Amino acid sequence: MVPPRPVHRNADVRMRGFVSRSTVDSAISWIDQVLSSRGIMPAEEVNLLEASGRILAHEIVSQFDVPAFARSMMDGYALRADETHGATSYNPVVLDVIGSSYPGKPLNAIVQPGQAVRIMTGAPVPDGADAVLAVEQTETDGTKLLAGGEVPAGRHIGLPGEDIRRGDIVLPSGRPLRPQDVGILSALGIGRVPVVRPPRVRILITGNELLPAGTSPSGFRIADSNGPMLSALVNRDGGAAVVPEMIPDDPDRILESLQQPADVILVSGGSSAGQEDHVPVILGSHGELAIHGIAMRPSSPTGMGLLNGALVFLLPGNPVSCLCAYDFFAGRAIRFLSGKNRDWPYRKVRLTTNRKLVSVVGRLDYARVRIVDNRVEPLAISGASVLSSTTRADGFVLIPDDSEGIPAEGETDVYLY
Amino acid sequence: MVPPRPVHRNADVRMRGFVSRSTVDSAISWIDQVLSSRGIMPAEEVNLLEASGRILAHEIVSQFDVPAFARSMMDGYALRADETHGATSYNPVVLDVIGSSYPGKPLNAIVQPGQAVRIMTGAPVPDGADAVLAVEQTETDGTKLLAGGEVPAGRHIGLPGEDIRRGDIVLPSGRPLRPQDVGILSALGIGRVPVVRPPRVRILITGNELLPAGTSPSGFRIADSNGPMLSALVNRDGGAAVVPEMIPDDPDRILESLQQPADVILVSGGSSAGQEDHVPVILGSHGELAIHGIAMRPSSPTGMGLLNGALVFLLPGNPVSCLCAYDFFAGRAIRFLSGKNRDWPYRKVRLTTNRKLVSVVGRLDYARVRIVDNRVEPLAISGASVLSSTTRADGFVLIPDDSEGIPAEGETDVYLY
Repeated sequence: MVPPRPVHRNADVRMRGFVSRSTVDSAISWIDQVLSSRGIMPAEEVNLLEASGRILAHEIVSQFDVPAFARSMMDGYALRADETHGATSYNPVVLDVIGSSYPGKPLNAIVQPGQAVRIMTGAPVPDGADAVLAVEQTETDGTKLLAGGEVPAGRHIGLPGEDIRRGDIVLPSGRPLRPQDVGILSALGIGRVPVVRPPRVRILITGNELLPAGTSPSGFRIADSNGPMLSALVNRDGGAAVVPEMIPDDPDRILESLQQPADVILVSGGSSAGQEDHVPVILGSHGELAIHGIAMRPSSPTGMGLLNGALVFLLPGNPVSCLCAYDFFAGRAIRFLSGKNRDWPYRKVRLTTNRKLVSVVGRLDYARVRIVDNRVEPLAISGASVLSSTTRADGFVLIPDDSEGIPAEGETDVYLY
Repeated sequence: MVPPRPVHRNADVRMRGFVSRSTVDSAISWIDQVLSSRGIMPAEEVNLLEASGRILAHEIVSQFDVPAFARSMMDGYALRADETHGATSYNPVVLDVIGSSYPGKPLNAIVQPGQAVRIMTGAPVPDGADAVLAVEQTETDGTKLLAGGEVPAGRHIGLPGEDIRRGDIVLPSGRPLRPQDVGILSALGIGRVPVVRPPRVRILITGNELLPAGTSPSGFRIADSNGPMLSALVNRDGGAAVVPEMIPDDPDRILESLQQPADVILVSGGSSAGQEDHVPVILGSHGELAIHGIAMRPSSPTGMGLLNGALVFLLPGNPVSCLCAYDFFAGRAIRFLSGKNRDWPYRKVRLTTNRKLVSVVGRLDYARVRIVDNRVEPLAISGASVLSSTTRADGFVLIPDDSEGIPAEGETDVYLY
């Protein structure tokens, strides 16, 4: 009689999932520790016309007074203020108009008593004059001016350095540049702007069953959706996404791809602990697999580590898990390296729930929700593979790992996509 | 005796400013009327990898069920649910493992009574099976499976069309595409995405005194700051900004530039009613100068009209006025044409003022403010030429034309830059 073959509870251990899971907090701590040791990316210079939205790499100190000269703030006449004493429209002071001052084209003369200079907004105020009388208060025949009002010294004159003084810190390092900041840089003579270089992010898509992004589903094969999604997320967060690469589920090819130079590598798929999941093993043997398996839902089969100096994130192939794991972990790193705020890039609002949001103690939940009449409505979803839940959703709610959920009529923060 | 030369109060009328000013509301009404008659820009197709952030030009209807087949939501075993009746880990049901189903690589077999198929997450569920038992509830020696738990029919199986059904409207026309939307489009086989074509926006910089953007100030000449700022604003709002062109203050050259093809033309400088302000006259004689002079501060010398089908905005040369006039008027048109929400792109918060914000009845004020300890602090500013006020500011407050200002400790909306 042949004895029965032995049955071992762990015979198929590599398909059985994780022995233990890290908390979200410990994974974030690991990321932050790596980030603080390497700091943000170094500077690169870009043209002014490409600088808006980028992060300033150094503080900008003005080398100039702006304006560099006294300028008129009005169309009118530059004159000596004390000569307008007592002038009214009924009893005007008569002055000689000795010329005109235009922006960039001053009058090369000194205003003497009894004289005035026609002046345009922005034009240099000629020496001798110490005020501008607005054109509305004057009459003229071209050579004689009837000054029909009094002005105190300094009126309608912008002084040198009034906008910016030489030596002023105009913009601080780390500033996300606004359109008007770019205007200031231009005025300060800064044609090339030092900004934080975007981290180079490679996106590796594993899964033999996947067709190239944007191709029609065929039989049991579907097109990759994570490549284009991750590429968009990386670019949103300030990274420079390389065109996603599809690699076969072959350990040698995966290793070869992981060893190409990059600041950050995102691997979609094969991140779990099953026998088809090569990537964690490869990362662990050729680099460091620091975190593998996280107490959260979705995205539990997420890993991260280091290889050849690149931060490597192993993201689940399921699209929702992939999005969530990106936003929790990889996005944080990319935002930091890009010089941005590392926290969620989503706007947060505090709202009341329509219905209970269920969770379990011991894991953090990322629940997609809609906002209906300014209240939070959980989306009925059946799984992490339902990417359409993230397009139907207006945002998401985080249910912490010490909570069983959020009751109906409870208040919660909602992060808006 | 020579008689005195006649003095006329309006001898210098072209330097005297505007006879009357339009309200902000009437200028916006004119813009909206032009926009509603021409509609948003037509569609163009872009690659998936460039689609995020763009505006979808047509609704997207799915041509496929996603998934197209029943798939496993777990790693485990596909089997016939009724055979697990009464199974426990102490009293398992024994089944024959007849093969494995992988994502994209199904097992070509029908599961018979007494049989099970090893199955990975995402893999097709073989015919005959109607449930998946999670791997954690099983033991195996490779050919025999000990099913240690009951499952109801349908458990852990994602049904065809569960994510998206053929014929579903997946994304509506006009949607600003999110990263996850791009993922969905990819899965639906849409490799080229129909998005709204950005309006082509030409930026003309007038002012003989100006040096090219980003050059150091020299003597009485300063570098143009409006070109780079406007370019950044246009791109932010979804337009395609052509590299700004500097044109001399020469009517023929200005006309020639205005006649080049564009959807929108922004002219910086020369927008007022002085004798150096050629642009309004040219626009009025060769096209339509619909609005010129607006009851607001800054940006009062703003104009707008039409020439050869292009919407033309005449923006003041002073940088703050230029920014303000852009955001009130030109930006509104560009955002609409790009398919975006035409309203302010700034986030609005309601806060209490630290100090009075002064205005006068009859004009709308655009006041730059800082936010200090969550309260509104007006910026001490001396004029529209002080661009640094917009970089020091956190945002702005609008004081309507029927108001004398906002008192200290008053509530107001702040638009955040």
